[in-house]
Amino acid sequence: MQAPFEYVVVEKSDEEIAEDRRIFSGLAVAVRALSEASLRTTIDHDEATVIRHEIEAITDRLRRSQIEGSYGVTMTSDGVVLGYGNAVVGVRNPIAPPLVIKTEPDGRTSAEFELNALYEGPPGCVHGGVVALVLDQVLGESPAAGGTPGMTGTLTLRYGQPTALGKCSAAAWIERREGVKTIVKGWLRNADGEITVEAEGIFILPRWAREELARSGNQPPRFE
Amino acid sequence: MQAPFEYVVVEKSDEEIAEDRRIFSGLAVAVRALSEASLRTTIDHDEATVIRHEIEAITDRLRRSQIEGSYGVTMTSDGVVLGYGNAVVGVRNPIAPPLVIKTEPDGRTSAEFELNALYEGPPGCVHGGVVALVLDQVLGESPAAGGTPGMTGTLTLRYGQPTALGKCSAAAWIERREGVKTIVKGWLRNADGEITVEAEGIFILPRWAREELARSGNQPPRFE
Repeated sequence: MQAPFEYVVVEKSDEEIAEDRRIFSGLAVAVRALSEASLRTTIDHDEATVIRHEIEAITDRLRRSQIEGSYGVTMTSDGVVLGYGNAVVGVRNPIAPPLVIKTEPDGRTSAEFELNALYEGPPGCVHGGVVALVLDQVLGESPAAGGTPGMTGTLTLRYGQPTALGKCSAAAWIERREGVKTIVKGWLRNADGEITVEAEGIFILPRWAREELARSGNQPPRFE
Repeated sequence: MQAPFEYVVVEKSDEEIAEDRRIFSGLAVAVRALSEASLRTTIDHDEATVIRHEIEAITDRLRRSQIEGSYGVTMTSDGVVLGYGNAVVGVRNPIAPPLVIKTEPDGRTSAEFELNALYEGPPGCVHGGVVALVLDQVLGESPAAGGTPGMTGTLTLRYGQPTALGKCSAAAWIERREGVKTIVKGWLRNADGEITVEAEGIFILPRWAREELARSGNQPPRFE
């Protein structure tokens, strides 16, 4: 199987990239707050309709100049992949909380974050699928942090109890390795520190990625 | 264990509720487009900053009147739960694609939908966690459709290959029942109709929900 994508290289200096990140992650912060406010608002219908049209006009202005397709295929001329679009950690992605995941060289990962009304499933609780979304990323960064990068092969989640919306934390660690497989375990805790969901993932480096790595002298792309 | 929430009852007529839905789901459509545009835009920094401030001002106007907390705890005086806030199917939730899930009385569920740049994980591909998010909902609606509602106990995902961003479809069905457990299987297909991810879920009605049902004469709340 072939890599399902080709990188698009952006020709910008480090300073330009840093300033881009600052400006557009700030824009994403504003859009996240707007998303949450638009879900919970009870303003009158006339005002809501006026606001809808204002938002549509802003969208048109943003679209006057935009990248082709999605963000993740963007790489700097230095070979740094700009992971700003990632649905969990992407600083430019308004649907991402976004998580800031700490990693250790032994593969341990952890994150503290808040899940608001946008992430709801059962009334007042985090959507079970959002738990899976977050844990896929927290577990998924573990193999790479520990030196054996891989893509999710299987992911199993055991839901012990509902997780109330609000402050949460997650962590993962490498349990063991079996050939090309890295087996990772992790959990999600609620604001009271109780483990509400446990997860296990098997991560495998697909053949196309191993071939790509071999071509680049086993240097995986750096992500930022 | 107690139900982790209490419903908030809104006193509105059916017509008012329908009009609310029309207006505010329209607002969510606009915010979804804005989110995608804000991720992909390459407009200059001055214009992006002006737009950020405009969005913040709109957010302030939306917040002048809003519900307490999250949406899922809202119920009409007729006992209909307004699931508009759900992270996968909520028509008022800007982070939801949102999925429209068809259900059959035998528990079969299916949905066709599009996942754009907001749902990216690996470059050009659907985030593995987004796949889990979507499948948790598609599988999760199966037990209720088949007459044995439950919350996710375990969810297992097997990723066969990356799923390209774009058109996707998902389906689920009840595999078997074991006491209070309903075992559900399902899949995600890419635009070419290939199964990229398979899933299995075990859904269990928690004790607090069984007690709540018994109190209400075994009438589960209706969702809309």
